[in-house]
Amino acid sequence: MNQPAAKIELWHCADTRSFRVLWVLEELRLPYQLHLLPFPPRARMPEYLEINPLGTIPSMRDGDTFMTESAGIVQYLATRHAPNELVVGVEDRAYGSWLNWLHFGEATLTFPQTLIMRYRKLEPGRAEQVADDYARWFMSRLRQVDRTLQATPWLCAGRFTAADISVGYALLLADFLELSSRFPQAVAEYWLRLQARPAFQAAKGAQKGSLAAELASLQHA
Amino acid sequence: MNQPAAKIELWHCADTRSFRVLWVLEELRLPYQLHLLPFPPRARMPEYLEINPLGTIPSMRDGDTFMTESAGIVQYLATRHAPNELVVGVEDRAYGSWLNWLHFGEATLTFPQTLIMRYRKLEPGRAEQVADDYARWFMSRLRQVDRTLQATPWLCAGRFTAADISVGYALLLADFLELSSRFPQAVAEYWLRLQARPAFQAAKGAQKGSLAAELASLQHA
Repeated sequence: MNQPAAKIELWHCADTRSFRVLWVLEELRLPYQLHLLPFPPRARMPEYLEINPLGTIPSMRDGDTFMTESAGIVQYLATRHAPNELVVGVEDRAYGSWLNWLHFGEATLTFPQTLIMRYRKLEPGRAEQVADDYARWFMSRLRQVDRTLQATPWLCAGRFTAADISVGYALLLADFLELSSRFPQAVAEYWLRLQARPAFQAAKGAQKGSLAAELASLQHA
Repeated sequence: MNQPAAKIELWHCADTRSFRVLWVLEELRLPYQLHLLPFPPRARMPEYLEINPLGTIPSMRDGDTFMTESAGIVQYLATRHAPNELVVGVEDRAYGSWLNWLHFGEATLTFPQTLIMRYRKLEPGRAEQVADDYARWFMSRLRQVDRTLQATPWLCAGRFTAADISVGYALLLADFLELSSRFPQAVAEYWLRLQARPAFQAAKGAQKGSLAAELASLQHA
């Protein structure tokens, strides 16, 4: 009998950065095995440290390849399964813009929000001012996204690409952090377009939960 | 007469994230035009906002392409000028590892240090505890780098690649933030190997200064 092809394995917590990976798997219709973990896994499932000693989410295994950077995994999966609409090729005029948004979504748009998350939701009362500092920072960086989206429905190349998954997750997190009511108009409309994608909805369905529910269960434990 | 080929333009502050770009330009021996700015440019050279409305460093222009994410620019320049030793191809076994380190160097290793920088150096006394939180975080993430470097001199593919530039900059910043005396041994030795590279030294020479000197001039202004 043939051995079935090894599936891609994803270690995931609802609505955390690993949602990017779940979303790209659904966009590409790749088979995968999902390991759903309680948040934060470092505290609530310490055996996860045997998979990823950093304790961070996501972890992704694809054969010999093991990765932990969500925007990097999005790029890896899209380019390893090229050609597809999510990839912008190295000779394309939009290639630099595509790479920039892929990195921007995590390093520039998600980083300030982890501070808001930590000091408002997980450890409230310790450094409120820092949470405020980075809420302001996030909103100012978002103006750059708004400027782009005033001219085009997707971030680059005139179509939905892996870059929209990287930035789109930052908006999902902002929605959870109650920042979405302050989205500039073009960003607010873009956020609706992203949520309307069948693969976004499939990813939401596959994880059966939300970060809000996870945090609520944690706080009532 | 022929128009000379447009050079790559880089807007740079000494020893900041844009050092990654300067370094990759030197590794690839590409011609470039360097715009050296005082740090922080948003405050000390407001006309820079006409180039990059975010006010962040770096900015890089290559023909029609304009980018602001340092790790993304490293990847862009290396792959646009492939083949070269800095690139790991999509079919290579180390491809996923390469992408992971490229993103890890910025999102995971540099992000916590920007908090230390801000709350110890730029705005001391406002949130010392946050600086301490992220100094601890940085050191714990560095253990992962150390584990890898115990087995191999470079991060992936058995040779120096663009991934080492992304992570190498995080070590340069850590050195400035007085964290390098606590580097685990394999990381300390790697940091010496990185600094010994001719292109690293050429990049240091091209910028003619350091972040420490910039901050000192700022504090005595």
